[in-house]
Amino acid sequence: MGIVVDINKDREGGQKPSIDALQRLVGEDLQRVNQHILTNMQSPVALIPQLASHLIAAGGKRLRPMLTLASANLCGYTGTRHIGLSACVEFIHTATLLHDDVVDESELRRGQESANAVWGNQASVLVGDFLFSRAFQLMVADGSLQVLKILSDASAIIAEGEVLQLMTANDPQASEEAYLEVIRSKTATLFAAASRVGAVVADRPNIQEEALESFGMNLGIAFQLIDDVLDYSAKQAQLGKTVGDDFREGKVTLPVILAWRRGSEEERDFWRRTIERLDQTEDDIETAIGLMTKHRSLNDTVERARHYAAIAKDSLGIFPDGDMKAAMLEVVDFCVERAY
Amino acid sequence: MGIVVDINKDREGGQKPSIDALQRLVGEDLQRVNQHILTNMQSPVALIPQLASHLIAAGGKRLRPMLTLASANLCGYTGTRHIGLSACVEFIHTATLLHDDVVDESELRRGQESANAVWGNQASVLVGDFLFSRAFQLMVADGSLQVLKILSDASAIIAEGEVLQLMTANDPQASEEAYLEVIRSKTATLFAAASRVGAVVADRPNIQEEALESFGMNLGIAFQLIDDVLDYSAKQAQLGKTVGDDFREGKVTLPVILAWRRGSEEERDFWRRTIERLDQTEDDIETAIGLMTKHRSLNDTVERARHYAAIAKDSLGIFPDGDMKAAMLEVVDFCVERAY
Repeated sequence: MGIVVDINKDREGGQKPSIDALQRLVGEDLQRVNQHILTNMQSPVALIPQLASHLIAAGGKRLRPMLTLASANLCGYTGTRHIGLSACVEFIHTATLLHDDVVDESELRRGQESANAVWGNQASVLVGDFLFSRAFQLMVADGSLQVLKILSDASAIIAEGEVLQLMTANDPQASEEAYLEVIRSKTATLFAAASRVGAVVADRPNIQEEALESFGMNLGIAFQLIDDVLDYSAKQAQLGKTVGDDFREGKVTLPVILAWRRGSEEERDFWRRTIERLDQTEDDIETAIGLMTKHRSLNDTVERARHYAAIAKDSLGIFPDGDMKAAMLEVVDFCVERAY
Repeated sequence: MGIVVDINKDREGGQKPSIDALQRLVGEDLQRVNQHILTNMQSPVALIPQLASHLIAAGGKRLRPMLTLASANLCGYTGTRHIGLSACVEFIHTATLLHDDVVDESELRRGQESANAVWGNQASVLVGDFLFSRAFQLMVADGSLQVLKILSDASAIIAEGEVLQLMTANDPQASEEAYLEVIRSKTATLFAAASRVGAVVADRPNIQEEALESFGMNLGIAFQLIDDVLDYSAKQAQLGKTVGDDFREGKVTLPVILAWRRGSEEERDFWRRTIERLDQTEDDIETAIGLMTKHRSLNDTVERARHYAAIAKDSLGIFPDGDMKAAMLEVVDFCVERAY
C-alpha cells in the first residue's frame, strides 16, 4: 500500500491550494449554521439528537453548506436566509450518509465507527428519515417554493443515483458514462443545488443561478472522482483513513473501469473474481493498485477530474473578481490537489 | 389460534359497516389518483418503478388518499388539486412502509413477499427515499406552502414516532401513554394530515381544517389499535394473514401492555421471556392469546378504539349531513368493526 500517485511533476510550484481562505470568509456564517443545525436536530426522542450529533458533530468539512454561504456572499446577499438553508443542505447530506452507510454496510465513517455500527441499521434509517423531513420543515419555514423545488428535485435525483449505483454495482464492465451518471446524481447534484440556492436567496438573474449551479455540479464531479482515487491512494493512508474500502465492497469506480478497459484478459479475470464475485484475499488490494498504476488509471482519473474542475472555474467567469471568487476558485483546486 | 374475540354481543344488529360507500363516492377521483401514482413513480432507473409498483400496485385499501379525497369533497371542493396531493400522501405512506419493513426485517407485506425480501434492504431504503422526495416534488408542483408545512411536519413526527417505537421495543412494562404516543406519531399523524389537506385545498375556515384533522387523528388511533388486536385474532387468519407477527418481533402493543398490567408475576415471566428476550417456542403464541383472553386485553383494546372512534365521529358534527359525511362516519365504524 506504499504506492503514491505520481503526477506531481505536472503541477506548478508554489503554495498548495487549500480550503482555508473560504473557511475564513464564511467562518462567522458557518458558526451560525452549526448553531442552527444543533438547535434543529433536537427532538424529545433522545436517540435522534444522540445519533445525529454523532455524525454531524464529527464534523467533516461542511463543504456543501459552505457552498451555499459562498454563493450567497458572491451574489452580494446580506440577509440571513442562507443560514437556515445551509443547515437544510447539511441535513439532506447527513440523511443520505446515514442511509448510505446502511446500504453499504459500512462500519466506519469519517474515521469513527459509523452510526449504523453503533446504533444499528434501524435507527440509522429512521433518523435519516427524520433529518430529511426536518430539512423540508426548514425549507417551508424559509418559505421559498423556488428553493423547495431545487432541493426536492435534487433529493429525488440523489435517490435515483443511489439506486442506479446499486444496480450497476460489482460490474467492472460498466461504462465511464454510466459511472459519471451515478456520481453526477448521487454527489454532484447536491453540490449544484447548494450553490444555486445561494443565488436564489440573493434574488439574482437566472444566468447567475445557472452559473453557480454549473460551478457546484462540476466541482461535485471532480470532488467525487478524487474521492474515488483517494480510496486507492497512499494519501488516504496518511490521512488515517482505510485504503481499499471501495475495492472490498466491489464498488466500480473510474479507476477500476479504466484498469479493466486497458487490461489484458488475465487481468480482467482478476477484476471478475475480486469485484464481480467479491472473492478476495488480503493481497488483492496490492495487486489492484499495481494494475491501476501500470495502466495509469489513478492518474488519468485525476486528469478527468481536472477537466471538470476547469469547467467549474470557468463558470464563475461572469462574476467580478474579489476575495470570495478567489476563495471559491481555490476550493476547486483544493478538491483536485488533495489527491496528492 | 382458534380463539375469536367475543364482543359481538355488544353490537347492534343490522348491516356490518363497510368502506364501500366511501369507495363508491370517491371512486372516480381514486382512479385518477392511481393514474397519478403510476405516472409519478416512473424513473429512468428501472428498479424504482419495479419495486414501487410491487408495493403500490399490490393495493392495500388506499385509506389515506381516500381521506384527502373525502375531506376535500366534504368541504365542497370542485378542483383537481386533491388528486395530486392524495398521491403525495400515498407516496409518503409507501416510503414509510418500505423503511418499516427494513426496520422490522419483515418478510411479508399485504400477504405478499415484502420488497426487502425480494430486492434487499438496500433497494428498499433507497426507493423509499426516492418516493419520499417525489412526494415533496409533487407538493412543490401543487405550490401551497400550507400543504407543504402540514406534510413535512407530519413526516418529521412519523419518523420521531418510529424512532420512539424502536427505543421502547421489547419492553412489556411500557405504559399505555407511551404506546399511544407511538401510534399517534407513526400512524395517526398521517391520517390527520391527509384529512386536513382536503380542507386546505378547499380553502375552508380553520375550524373545518381542525375538525378534519381531529377526525383523521382519532380515526388513525382507532385504526392502529384494531390493527394491533387483529395481529392476535382469528379474524386475521380468516383474511389469509399470519397471526402473531407482532408477538414474534417482540412488539409491545396495547394487548400485551394490558395483559402484563393485569397479569400475575408468573405470567409476567412469560412476557419477559417471550417479548423482552425473544426466547420463544411455537406454542407461545397460543399461550399469549390465552392470557389476553383471560384478561380481556383484546376486548378492552377494542373498547379503547371505540373511544377514539367516537371522538372521530363527533368531530364531523360541524359539517352538514349528506352522503359523504355518512360514508366517512361509516368508515370509522368499519375501522373498528373489522376486528370481528
